[in-house]
Amino acid sequence: MARNKHPEETVQRILDVAFRLFMEKGYEHTSIQDMIDHLDGLSKGAIYHHFKSKEDILVAVTDKMTEESNQMLAVIRDRTDLTGKEKLKTIFKESLCRSVQDEIFTVAPDFSNSPRLLFSIFRETVDEAAPDYILPILKEGIADGSIRTEYPAELAELILLAANIWMNPMVFDNSPEESYRKFRVFAQMMQGFGLDVVDDEMLGRLQELASVYQKNK
Amino acid sequence: MARNKHPEETVQRILDVAFRLFMEKGYEHTSIQDMIDHLDGLSKGAIYHHFKSKEDILVAVTDKMTEESNQMLAVIRDRTDLTGKEKLKTIFKESLCRSVQDEIFTVAPDFSNSPRLLFSIFRETVDEAAPDYILPILKEGIADGSIRTEYPAELAELILLAANIWMNPMVFDNSPEESYRKFRVFAQMMQGFGLDVVDDEMLGRLQELASVYQKNK
Repeated sequence: MARNKHPEETVQRILDVAFRLFMEKGYEHTSIQDMIDHLDGLSKGAIYHHFKSKEDILVAVTDKMTEESNQMLAVIRDRTDLTGKEKLKTIFKESLCRSVQDEIFTVAPDFSNSPRLLFSIFRETVDEAAPDYILPILKEGIADGSIRTEYPAELAELILLAANIWMNPMVFDNSPEESYRKFRVFAQMMQGFGLDVVDDEMLGRLQELASVYQKNK
Repeated sequence: MARNKHPEETVQRILDVAFRLFMEKGYEHTSIQDMIDHLDGLSKGAIYHHFKSKEDILVAVTDKMTEESNQMLAVIRDRTDLTGKEKLKTIFKESLCRSVQDEIFTVAPDFSNSPRLLFSIFRETVDEAAPDYILPILKEGIADGSIRTEYPAELAELILLAANIWMNPMVFDNSPEESYRKFRVFAQMMQGFGLDVVDDEMLGRLQELASVYQKNK
């Protein structure tokens, strides 16, 4: 086989095929061999040249999704027509409602047995999403008077760990009923910080995603 | 070498030596060879027979500490002279103040680069500590009127994830100042649930542990 002159294209092809197979067959039921069968002419060695393991590929697939999610977060963060509190509400709503979430929850990876996957979502939340998107919004809310906290960096982390990880039906393998109860506790927590930013539409959507996950896991 | 007839004793010896070395040299600077040098007559193969890696040994060492911590939690949970809310406060206080914490924070493992270690503390919190110790206490508090929540199982999880993981200076590599701010946010969160169970003594102790960690990492 000719030497690969475009490694980033190869990586992209692997990720596209992997994502489609994860969606169709589920992560657990997809093997590296399945990917090779759909990657015309690519060898197992070529895949392992770019990725250490199937889990490594999943992490790359989810990283790509995170990138897209971050673009959405940046657009909301940079709007000039909303207060800080309104931006926070818009972010929760958009994060839940955007249609790619149905795809992600259909892939339905098993977090309960994957330290690396949990670690990846954990670090992304703490190192990027909280400081880069939620913190500026909280600071803006403090400046415009719509949010009150003395410790915006820490509050940003706590809110996002609760929302992205604890309330994520994939991470905790939650049923729609468990998601309902977590959402209620989360809403009360936010209320305690003076942040009435979640509503029943979001709750319904969270339960829907929990249901998609439970059907596909 | 004679065949090992007491594998649990061997495991115990390995864990004792590992713990001591982690304390003296730090986890990162301790090698499997260091352990062998202190385990008179034990071969590398014997260690690898019981543990897959150095991180595996660290997980076993922390599991053992968790076991001791759980015994302390059980004693408080089963007391008959305290309300639910008083038990919750006592648990926070004891968890921070017991002296073994100084030893644990001296070992100072690096969580930022260890998916398995994070996973281990995460699962222990969600699968054991929250349902086995905090949930019964919240239920008791609901019954005796000292705690008000409709969703004790979910609240138990959220509180403990915040306290054990987010507010843990080892997991987030927090300075005493960062620990101060997190503690304030945590206190406000607990207040939002009507739970005035943390105080300045606990704050001081948390900062002390953060300082021990920073010195030894």
